[in-house]
Amino acid sequence: MRINTEPGRISALEAKSLAQWIAFAPFVFQASVVMRDRGLLAGIDAAGEAGIAAQQLADQAGLSLYGTRVLLDFGVDIGLVEESDGAYVLGKTGYFILNDDMTRVNMDFTRDVCYQALGALDESIQDGKPRGLAALGDWDNLYDGLTSLPGSASESWFSFDHFYSDRVFDEFLPVVFATPVKEILDIGGNTGRWAQRCLAHDPQVRVTIMDLPQQLAVARKNIAAAGYSDRFNEYPLDVLR
Amino acid sequence: MRINTEPGRISALEAKSLAQWIAFAPFVFQASVVMRDRGLLAGIDAAGEAGIAAQQLADQAGLSLYGTRVLLDFGVDIGLVEESDGAYVLGKTGYFILNDDMTRVNMDFTRDVCYQALGALDESIQDGKPRGLAALGDWDNLYDGLTSLPGSASESWFSFDHFYSDRVFDEFLPVVFATPVKEILDIGGNTGRWAQRCLAHDPQVRVTIMDLPQQLAVARKNIAAAGYSDRFNEYPLDVLR
Repeated sequence: MRINTEPGRISALEAKSLAQWIAFAPFVFQASVVMRDRGLLAGIDAAGEAGIAAQQLADQAGLSLYGTRVLLDFGVDIGLVEESDGAYVLGKTGYFILNDDMTRVNMDFTRDVCYQALGALDESIQDGKPRGLAALGDWDNLYDGLTSLPGSASESWFSFDHFYSDRVFDEFLPVVFATPVKEILDIGGNTGRWAQRCLAHDPQVRVTIMDLPQQLAVARKNIAAAGYSDRFNEYPLDVLR
Repeated sequence: MRINTEPGRISALEAKSLAQWIAFAPFVFQASVVMRDRGLLAGIDAAGEAGIAAQQLADQAGLSLYGTRVLLDFGVDIGLVEESDGAYVLGKTGYFILNDDMTRVNMDFTRDVCYQALGALDESIQDGKPRGLAALGDWDNLYDGLTSLPGSASESWFSFDHFYSDRVFDEFLPVVFATPVKEILDIGGNTGRWAQRCLAHDPQVRVTIMDLPQQLAVARKNIAAAGYSDRFNEYPLDVLR
Protein backbone atom coordinates (compact mmCIF):
# COMPACT_ATOMS: atom_id res chain seq x y z
CA MET A 1 0.00 0.00 0.00
CA ARG A 2 2.98 2.35 -0.47
CA ILE A 3 2.96 5.19 -2.95
CA ASN A 4 6.42 6.67 -3.04
CA THR A 5 6.40 7.19 0.71
CA GLU A 6 9.93 5.94 1.35
CA PRO A 7 11.94 8.18 3.69
CA GLY A 8 14.12 10.60 1.77
CA ARG A 9 12.53 9.74 -1.56
CA ILE A 10 9.64 12.18 -1.33
CA SER A 11 9.96 15.94 -1.83
CA ALA A 12 8.07 18.49 0.29
CA LEU A 13 5.84 19.24 -2.72
CA GLU A 14 5.03 15.56 -3.22
CA ALA A 15 4.32 15.25 0.51
CA LYS A 16 1.95 18.22 0.41
CA SER A 17 0.15 16.70 -2.59
CA LEU A 18 -0.09 13.36 -0.81
CA ALA A 19 -1.52 15.11 2.26
CA GLN A 20 -4.31 16.58 0.05
CA TRP A 21 -4.88 13.17 -1.48
CA ILE A 22 -5.36 11.77 2.02
CA ALA A 23 -7.59 14.70 3.06
CA PHE A 24 -9.90 13.97 0.12
CA ALA A 25 -9.43 10.18 0.13
CA PRO A 26 -13.14 9.36 0.72
CA PHE A 27 -13.98 11.29 -2.49
CA VAL A 28 -11.29 9.35 -4.36
CA PHE A 29 -12.71 6.08 -3.06
CA GLN A 30 -16.40 6.68 -3.72
CA ALA A 31 -15.83 8.23 -7.16
CA SER A 32 -13.70 5.23 -8.18
CA VAL A 33 -16.36 2.79 -6.95
CA VAL A 34 -19.13 4.56 -8.87
CA MET A 35 -17.05 4.83 -12.06
CA ARG A 36 -16.44 1.10 -11.83
CA ASP A 37 -19.99 0.04 -10.92
CA ARG A 38 -21.80 2.37 -13.34
CA GLY A 39 -19.78 0.97 -16.22
CA LEU A 40 -17.82 4.12 -17.06
CA LEU A 41 -14.43 2.42 -16.71
CA ALA A 42 -15.67 -0.57 -18.71
CA GLY A 43 -17.02 1.73 -21.45
CA ILE A 44 -13.70 3.54 -21.65
CA ASP A 45 -11.77 0.25 -21.64
CA ALA A 46 -13.91 -1.08 -24.50
CA ALA A 47 -13.20 2.02 -26.60
CA GLY A 48 -9.48 1.19 -26.58
CA GLU A 49 -6.87 3.67 -27.76
CA ALA A 50 -9.33 5.67 -29.85
CA GLY A 51 -11.14 6.73 -26.67
CA ILE A 52 -14.77 7.67 -26.16
CA ALA A 53 -16.67 10.94 -25.64
CA ALA A 54 -18.45 11.87 -22.40
CA GLN A 55 -21.87 11.97 -24.12
CA GLN A 56 -21.47 8.45 -25.47
CA LEU A 57 -20.43 7.17 -22.05
CA ALA A 58 -23.40 8.92 -20.45
CA ASP A 59 -25.77 7.31 -22.97
CA GLN A 60 -24.29 3.85 -22.44
CA ALA A 61 -24.48 4.17 -18.65
CA GLY A 62 -27.93 5.77 -18.58
CA LEU A 63 -26.58 8.75 -16.62
CA SER A 64 -26.89 12.47 -17.15
CA LEU A 65 -24.09 14.17 -19.09
CA TYR A 66 -23.48 16.38 -16.06
CA GLY A 67 -23.13 13.46 -13.64
CA THR A 68 -20.88 11.64 -16.08
CA ARG A 69 -18.66 14.70 -16.49
CA VAL A 70 -18.34 15.16 -12.72
CA LEU A 71 -17.03 11.61 -12.44
CA LEU A 72 -14.81 11.84 -15.53
CA ASP A 73 -13.19 15.11 -14.40
CA PHE A 74 -12.44 13.57 -11.05
CA GLY A 75 -11.25 10.36 -12.73
CA VAL A 76 -8.72 12.39 -14.73
CA ASP A 77 -7.55 14.19 -11.56
CA ILE A 78 -6.88 10.97 -9.71
CA GLY A 79 -5.33 9.26 -12.72
CA LEU A 80 -7.92 6.56 -13.47
CA VAL A 81 -8.61 7.88 -16.96
CA GLU A 82 -6.86 10.19 -19.39
CA GLU A 83 -8.49 12.75 -21.64
CA SER A 84 -7.31 14.16 -24.94
CA ASP A 85 -9.46 16.28 -27.29
CA GLY A 86 -12.64 15.19 -25.53
CA ALA A 87 -11.87 11.47 -25.84
CA TYR A 88 -11.34 9.41 -22.68
CA VAL A 89 -8.96 6.45 -22.51
CA LEU A 90 -8.27 4.15 -19.57
CA GLY A 91 -5.15 4.78 -17.48
CA LYS A 92 -3.16 2.00 -15.87
CA THR A 93 -4.66 2.58 -12.43
CA GLY A 94 -8.17 2.55 -13.90
CA TYR A 95 -7.29 -0.74 -15.57
CA PHE A 96 -6.54 -2.36 -12.21
CA ILE A 97 -9.62 -0.82 -10.55
CA LEU A 98 -11.68 -2.38 -13.34
CA ASN A 99 -10.00 -5.71 -13.97
CA ASP A 100 -7.90 -6.80 -11.01
CA ASP A 101 -9.68 -9.32 -8.74
CA MET A 102 -7.73 -8.35 -5.63
CA THR A 103 -8.54 -4.67 -6.10
CA ARG A 104 -12.20 -5.55 -6.59
CA VAL A 105 -12.56 -7.61 -3.39
CA ASN A 106 -10.62 -4.98 -1.41
CA MET A 107 -12.84 -2.20 -2.69
CA ASP A 108 -16.11 -4.07 -2.12
CA PHE A 109 -14.98 -5.05 1.39
CA THR A 110 -14.08 -1.44 2.20
CA ARG A 111 -17.41 -0.12 0.89
CA ASP A 112 -19.84 -2.72 2.17
CA VAL A 113 -18.24 -3.78 5.46
CA CYS A 114 -15.98 -0.93 6.60
CA TYR A 115 -16.92 2.46 5.14
CA GLN A 116 -19.61 3.49 7.60
CA ALA A 117 -17.97 1.71 10.54
CA LEU A 118 -14.68 3.56 9.96
CA GLY A 119 -16.44 6.78 10.98
CA ALA A 120 -16.24 5.46 14.56
CA LEU A 121 -12.49 4.70 14.45
CA ASP A 122 -11.64 7.35 17.03
CA GLU A 123 -14.17 6.00 19.53
CA SER A 124 -13.04 2.42 18.86
CA ILE A 125 -9.37 3.23 19.51
CA GLN A 126 -10.29 5.15 22.66
CA ASP A 127 -12.60 2.46 24.08
CA GLY A 128 -10.86 -0.62 22.75
CA LYS A 129 -14.21 -1.87 21.37
CA PRO A 130 -15.45 -2.20 17.76
CA ARG A 131 -17.79 0.83 18.01
CA GLY A 132 -18.35 1.07 14.25
CA LEU A 133 -19.88 -2.39 14.22
CA ALA A 134 -23.20 -0.77 15.17
CA ALA A 135 -23.46 0.35 11.52
CA LEU A 136 -23.94 -3.33 10.60
CA GLY A 137 -25.81 -4.74 13.58
CA ASP A 138 -26.03 -5.11 17.35
CA TRP A 139 -23.21 -7.53 18.22
CA ASP A 140 -20.27 -7.53 20.64
CA ASN A 141 -17.85 -8.41 17.86
CA LEU A 142 -18.02 -9.10 14.16
CA TYR A 143 -17.81 -12.87 14.50
CA ASP A 144 -21.01 -12.98 16.54
CA GLY A 145 -22.76 -11.35 13.58
CA LEU A 146 -20.96 -13.06 10.73
CA THR A 147 -23.92 -15.25 9.78
CA SER A 148 -26.41 -12.37 9.98
CA LEU A 149 -24.58 -9.53 8.20
CA PRO A 150 -26.77 -7.47 5.82
CA GLY A 151 -26.69 -8.80 2.22
CA SER A 152 -23.95 -6.83 0.50
CA ALA A 153 -21.77 -6.79 3.64
CA SER A 154 -22.04 -10.56 3.95
CA GLU A 155 -21.15 -11.14 0.31
CA SER A 156 -18.22 -8.70 0.38
CA TRP A 157 -16.90 -10.03 3.69
CA PHE A 158 -16.77 -13.63 2.45
CA SER A 159 -15.38 -12.68 -0.97
CA PHE A 160 -12.57 -10.79 0.80
CA ASP A 161 -11.99 -13.53 3.34
CA HIS A 162 -11.97 -16.35 0.80
CA PHE A 163 -9.89 -14.45 -1.76
CA TYR A 164 -6.98 -14.39 0.65
CA SER A 165 -7.55 -17.65 2.54
CA ASP A 166 -8.08 -19.79 -0.57
CA ARG A 167 -4.61 -18.84 -1.83
CA VAL A 168 -3.02 -19.65 1.48
CA PHE A 169 -4.64 -23.10 1.56
CA ASP A 170 -2.62 -24.17 -1.49
CA GLU A 171 0.58 -23.36 0.35
CA PHE A 172 -0.57 -24.77 3.70
CA LEU A 173 -1.76 -28.20 2.52
CA PRO A 174 1.68 -29.68 1.71
CA VAL A 175 3.10 -28.21 4.93
CA VAL A 176 0.35 -29.65 7.15
CA PHE A 177 0.48 -33.06 5.44
CA ALA A 178 4.30 -33.25 5.24
CA THR A 179 4.20 -35.72 8.14
CA PRO A 180 1.35 -38.26 8.72
CA VAL A 181 -1.82 -36.60 10.07
CA LYS A 182 -4.86 -38.39 11.55
CA GLU A 183 -6.77 -35.59 13.26
CA ILE A 184 -6.92 -31.85 12.59
CA LEU A 185 -8.33 -29.25 14.99
CA ASP A 186 -9.34 -26.23 12.91
CA ILE A 187 -9.63 -23.29 15.34
CA GLY A 188 -11.95 -20.63 13.92
CA GLY A 189 -12.82 -22.87 10.97
CA ASN A 190 -15.68 -20.58 9.88
CA THR A 191 -17.57 -21.84 6.80
CA GLY A 192 -15.43 -24.97 6.61
CA ARG A 193 -13.43 -24.25 3.47
CA TRP A 194 -10.09 -25.29 4.95
CA ALA A 195 -11.69 -28.32 6.60
CA GLN A 196 -13.11 -29.38 3.21
CA ARG A 197 -9.74 -28.98 1.54
CA CYS A 198 -8.14 -31.21 4.18
CA LEU A 199 -10.91 -33.80 4.01
CA ALA A 200 -10.60 -33.92 0.22
CA HIS A 201 -6.80 -34.02 0.31
CA ASP A 202 -6.57 -37.09 2.60
CA PRO A 203 -9.45 -39.62 2.64
CA GLN A 204 -8.31 -40.88 6.06
CA VAL A 205 -8.04 -37.59 7.94
CA ARG A 206 -10.68 -36.40 10.45
CA VAL A 207 -11.31 -32.68 11.06
CA THR A 208 -12.85 -30.94 14.08
CA ILE A 209 -13.86 -27.30 13.72
CA MET A 210 -13.79 -25.15 16.85
CA ASP A 211 -15.95 -22.04 16.32
CA LEU A 212 -19.15 -20.26 17.36
CA PRO A 213 -22.36 -22.39 17.11
CA GLN A 214 -23.75 -20.27 14.26
CA GLN A 215 -20.54 -20.69 12.22
CA LEU A 216 -20.57 -24.45 12.89
CA ALA A 217 -24.09 -24.65 11.48
CA VAL A 218 -22.85 -23.19 8.19
CA ALA A 219 -19.74 -25.38 8.12
CA ARG A 220 -21.80 -28.50 8.91
CA LYS A 221 -24.09 -27.79 5.97
CA ASN A 222 -21.22 -27.19 3.55
CA ILE A 223 -19.34 -30.30 4.67
CA ALA A 224 -22.48 -32.44 4.45
CA ALA A 225 -23.09 -31.18 0.90
CA ALA A 226 -19.54 -32.17 -0.01
CA GLY A 227 -20.15 -35.65 1.47
CA TYR A 228 -17.62 -35.53 4.30
CA SER A 229 -19.92 -35.59 7.35
CA ASP A 230 -18.62 -38.97 8.56
CA ARG A 231 -15.13 -37.54 9.17
CA PHE A 232 -16.24 -34.18 10.62
CA ASN A 233 -16.65 -33.16 14.27
CA GLU A 234 -17.76 -29.93 15.91
CA TYR A 235 -16.55 -28.15 19.02
CA PRO A 236 -18.66 -25.06 19.82
CA LEU A 237 -16.58 -22.36 21.56
CA ASP A 238 -16.02 -18.61 21.38
CA VAL A 239 -12.24 -18.46 21.03
CA LEU A 240 -12.23 -14.69 21.64
CA ARG A 241 -13.49 -15.06 25.26
CA MET B 1 -4.37 16.21 -5.99
CA ARG B 2 -2.07 14.26 -8.31
CA ILE B 3 0.30 11.59 -7.07
CA ASN B 4 2.48 10.52 -9.94
CA THR B 5 -0.54 9.79 -12.10
CA GLU B 6 0.80 11.36 -15.29
CA PRO B 7 0.26 9.22 -18.39
CA GLY B 8 3.33 7.17 -19.24
CA ARG B 9 5.08 8.06 -16.00
CA ILE B 10 3.54 5.30 -13.92
CA SER B 11 4.58 1.63 -14.12
CA ALA B 12 2.08 -1.25 -13.94
CA LEU B 13 3.37 -2.07 -10.45
CA GLU B 14 2.88 1.52 -9.27
CA ALA B 15 -0.60 1.51 -10.80
CA LYS B 16 -1.50 -1.70 -8.98
CA SER B 17 -0.24 -0.21 -5.70
CA LEU B 18 -2.22 2.96 -6.33
CA ALA B 19 -5.33 0.86 -7.01
CA GLN B 20 -4.91 -0.78 -3.56
CA TRP B 21 -4.39 2.64 -2.01
CA ILE B 22 -7.69 3.75 -3.54
CA ALA B 23 -9.44 0.53 -2.49
CA PHE B 24 -8.41 1.16 1.14
CA ALA B 25 -8.60 4.97 0.98
CA PRO B 26 -11.26 5.31 3.74
CA PHE B 27 -8.88 3.48 6.12
CA VAL B 28 -6.06 5.84 5.12
CA PHE B 29 -8.29 8.84 5.74
CA GLN B 30 -9.76 7.87 9.11
CA ALA B 31 -6.45 6.60 10.51
CA SER B 32 -4.77 9.88 9.53
CA VAL B 33 -7.53 11.92 11.16
CA VAL B 34 -7.33 9.95 14.41
CA MET B 35 -3.50 10.11 14.52
CA ARG B 36 -3.79 13.87 14.12
CA ASP B 37 -6.65 14.47 16.57
CA ARG B 38 -5.44 12.09 19.28
CA GLY B 39 -2.08 13.88 19.39
CA LEU B 40 0.07 11.05 18.04
CA LEU B 41 1.49 13.11 15.17
CA ALA B 42 2.10 16.06 17.52
CA GLY B 43 3.85 13.79 20.05
CA ILE B 44 6.08 12.39 17.33
CA ASP B 45 6.78 15.86 15.95
CA ALA B 46 7.77 17.12 19.41
CA ALA B 47 10.22 14.25 19.83
CA GLY B 48 12.21 15.50 16.84
CA GLU B 49 14.94 13.42 15.21
CA ALA B 50 15.50 11.27 18.30
CA GLY B 51 12.01 9.84 17.91
CA ILE B 52 9.65 8.43 20.52
CA ALA B 53 8.54 4.94 21.57
CA ALA B 54 4.99 3.62 21.14
CA GLN B 55 4.49 3.21 24.91
CA GLN B 56 5.41 6.85 25.56
CA LEU B 57 3.03 8.02 22.84
CA ALA B 58 0.26 5.85 24.25
CA ASP B 59 0.80 7.31 27.74
CA GLN B 60 0.81 10.88 26.43
CA ALA B 61 -2.36 10.31 24.41
CA GLY B 62 -4.18 8.33 27.09
CA LEU B 63 -4.67 5.42 24.68
CA SER B 64 -3.98 1.71 25.02
CA LEU B 65 -0.62 0.48 23.72
CA TYR B 66 -2.52 -1.83 21.36
CA GLY B 67 -4.64 0.98 19.88
CA THR B 68 -1.57 3.18 19.53
CA ARG B 69 0.36 0.42 17.77
CA VAL B 70 -2.51 -0.23 15.32
CA LEU B 71 -2.40 3.42 14.30
CA LEU B 72 1.41 3.64 14.22
CA ASP B 73 1.78 0.52 12.07
CA PHE B 74 -0.72 1.94 9.61
CA GLY B 75 0.96 5.36 9.80
CA VAL B 76 4.24 3.76 8.74
CA ASP B 77 2.51 1.91 5.88
CA ILE B 78 1.01 5.08 4.45
CA GLY B 79 4.15 7.15 5.01
CA LEU B 80 2.97 9.56 7.72
CA VAL B 81 5.60 8.39 10.21
CA GLU B 82 8.84 6.45 10.01
CA GLU B 83 10.06 3.85 12.48
CA SER B 84 13.59 2.79 13.32
CA ASP B 85 14.58 0.58 16.30
CA GLY B 86 11.21 1.18 17.96
CA ALA B 87 11.45 4.99 17.73
CA TYR B 88 8.92 6.89 15.62
CA VAL B 89 9.79 10.10 13.75
CA LEU B 90 7.50 12.28 11.65
CA GLY B 91 7.62 11.88 7.85
CA LYS B 92 7.09 14.79 5.48
CA THR B 93 3.50 13.83 4.70
CA GLY B 94 2.74 13.53 8.41
CA TYR B 95 4.22 17.00 8.86
CA PHE B 96 1.68 18.48 6.43
CA ILE B 97 -1.22 16.50 7.90
CA LEU B 98 -0.28 17.97 11.29
CA ASN B 99 0.81 21.52 10.47
CA ASP B 100 -0.57 22.66 7.12
CA ASP B 101 -3.72 24.80 7.43
CA MET B 102 -5.07 23.90 4.00
CA THR B 103 -4.71 20.17 4.71
CA ARG B 104 -6.45 20.65 8.04
CA VAL B 105 -9.51 22.43 6.63
CA ASN B 106 -9.74 19.95 3.76
CA MET B 107 -9.63 17.00 6.14
CA ASP B 108 -12.15 18.45 8.61
CA PHE B 109 -14.50 19.33 5.74
CA THR B 110 -14.26 15.81 4.32
CA ARG B 111 -14.88 14.19 7.70
CA ASP B 112 -17.61 16.41 9.13
CA VAL B 113 -19.52 17.44 6.01
CA CYS B 114 -18.85 14.81 3.33
CA TYR B 115 -17.80 11.43 4.73
CA GLN B 116 -21.21 9.95 5.46
CA ALA B 117 -22.90 11.73 2.57
CA LEU B 118 -20.37 10.31 0.08
CA GLY B 119 -21.82 6.86 0.75
CA ALA B 120 -24.78 7.97 -1.39
CA LEU B 121 -22.68 9.17 -4.36
CA ASP B 122 -24.01 6.48 -6.68
CA GLU B 123 -27.63 7.37 -5.95
CA SER B 124 -26.85 11.10 -6.28
CA ILE B 125 -25.23 10.69 -9.69
CA GLN B 126 -28.12 8.49 -10.85
CA ASP B 127 -30.89 10.80 -9.62
CA GLY B 128 -29.15 14.15 -10.11
CA LYS B 129 -30.06 15.06 -6.50
CA PRO B 130 -27.85 15.46 -3.41
CA ARG B 131 -29.01 12.17 -1.80
CA GLY B 132 -26.23 12.10 0.78
CA LEU B 133 -27.45 15.37 2.26
CA ALA B 134 -29.92 13.32 4.33
CA ALA B 135 -26.95 12.39 6.57
CA LEU B 136 -26.88 16.04 7.73
CA GLY B 137 -30.54 17.05 7.62
CA ASP B 138 -33.79 17.16 5.68
CA TRP B 139 -33.21 19.83 3.00
CA ASP B 140 -33.52 20.01 -0.77
CA ASN B 141 -29.98 21.33 -1.13
CA LEU B 142 -27.12 22.22 1.17
CA TYR B 143 -27.73 25.96 1.04
CA ASP B 144 -31.21 25.57 2.52
CA GLY B 145 -29.59 23.94 5.54
CA LEU B 146 -26.43 26.02 5.80
CA THR B 147 -27.57 27.90 8.90
CA SER B 148 -28.81 24.75 10.64
CA LEU B 149 -25.99 22.25 10.00
CA PRO B 150 -25.04 20.11 13.01
CA GLY B 151 -22.21 21.65 15.09
CA SER B 152 -19.03 20.11 13.71
CA ALA B 153 -20.37 20.12 10.13
CA SER B 154 -21.20 23.83 10.39
CA GLU B 155 -17.78 24.73 11.76
CA SER B 156 -15.91 22.64 9.19
CA TRP B 157 -18.04 23.92 6.30
CA PHE B 158 -17.38 27.56 7.10
CA SER B 159 -13.68 27.00 7.86
CA PHE B 160 -13.34 25.35 4.45
CA ASP B 161 -15.41 27.98 2.68
CA HIS B 162 -13.63 30.92 4.29
CA PHE B 163 -10.14 29.44 3.93
CA TYR B 164 -10.47 29.58 0.16
CA SER B 165 -12.70 32.63 -0.26
CA ASP B 166 -10.70 34.87 2.09
CA ARG B 167 -7.61 34.39 -0.08
CA VAL B 168 -9.54 35.16 -3.23
CA PHE B 169 -10.90 38.41 -1.73
CA ASP B 170 -7.38 39.89 -1.58
CA GLU B 171 -7.01 39.34 -5.30
CA PHE B 172 -10.56 40.42 -6.17
CA LEU B 173 -10.66 43.73 -4.31
CA PRO B 174 -8.24 45.66 -6.57
CA VAL B 175 -9.92 44.18 -9.66
CA VAL B 176 -13.43 45.16 -8.59
CA PHE B 177 -12.35 48.65 -7.52
CA ALA B 178 -10.05 49.27 -10.50
CA THR B 179 -12.78 51.53 -11.92
CA PRO B 180 -15.13 53.70 -9.76
CA VAL B 181 -17.85 51.60 -8.03
CA LYS B 182 -20.97 52.93 -6.28
CA GLU B 183 -23.12 49.84 -5.85
CA ILE B 184 -22.24 46.16 -5.58
CA LEU B 185 -24.70 43.29 -5.94
CA ASP B 186 -23.24 40.28 -4.12
CA ILE B 187 -25.05 37.21 -5.45
CA GLY B 188 -24.87 34.38 -2.91
CA GLY B 189 -23.20 36.67 -0.37
CA ASN B 190 -23.66 34.13 2.42
CA THR B 191 -22.33 35.33 5.79
CA GLY B 192 -21.33 38.69 4.36
CA ARG B 193 -17.55 38.42 4.47
CA TRP B 194 -17.01 39.73 0.93
CA ALA B 195 -19.60 42.46 1.52
CA GLN B 196 -17.74 43.54 4.66
CA ARG B 197 -14.43 43.63 2.82
CA CYS B 198 -15.95 45.88 0.15
CA LEU B 199 -17.67 48.14 2.70
CA ALA B 200 -14.38 48.52 4.59
CA HIS B 201 -12.35 49.04 1.43
CA ASP B 202 -14.42 51.96 0.14
CA PRO B 203 -16.34 54.15 2.66
CA GLN B 204 -18.69 55.33 -0.16
CA VAL B 205 -19.70 51.99 -1.66
CA ARG B 206 -23.10 50.35 -0.98
CA VAL B 207 -23.56 46.57 -1.05
CA THR B 208 -26.68 44.47 -1.61
CA ILE B 209 -26.54 40.76 -0.82
CA MET B 210 -28.82 38.46 -2.76
CA ASP B 211 -29.26 35.16 -0.91
CA LEU B 212 -31.70 32.96 1.01
CA PRO B 213 -33.52 34.71 3.91
CA GLN B 214 -31.72 32.61 6.56
CA GLN B 215 -28.31 33.52 5.11
CA LEU B 216 -29.31 37.19 4.97
CA ALA B 217 -30.12 37.11 8.69
CA VAL B 218 -26.58 35.96 9.45
CA ALA B 219 -25.02 38.51 7.08
CA ARG B 220 -27.16 41.32 8.52
CA LYS B 221 -25.97 40.52 12.04
CA ASN B 222 -22.29 40.40 11.02
CA ILE B 223 -22.52 43.63 9.03
CA ALA B 224 -24.32 45.42 11.86
CA ALA B 225 -21.63 44.29 14.31
CA ALA B 226 -19.00 45.75 11.96
CA GLY B 227 -20.95 49.05 11.85
CA TYR B 228 -21.85 49.04 8.14
CA SER B 229 -25.66 48.68 8.32
CA ASP B 230 -26.29 52.10 6.76
CA ARG B 231 -24.68 51.03 3.46
CA PHE B 232 -26.12 47.51 3.36
CA ASN B 233 -29.22 46.23 1.54
CA GLU B 234 -30.82 42.80 1.31
CA TYR B 235 -32.50 40.98 -1.56
CA PRO B 236 -33.98 37.64 -0.47
CA LEU B 237 -33.95 35.07 -3.31
CA ASP B 238 -33.06 31.43 -3.93
CA VAL B 239 -30.64 31.77 -6.85
CA LEU B 240 -30.70 27.99 -7.46
CA ARG B 241 -34.38 28.00 -8.43
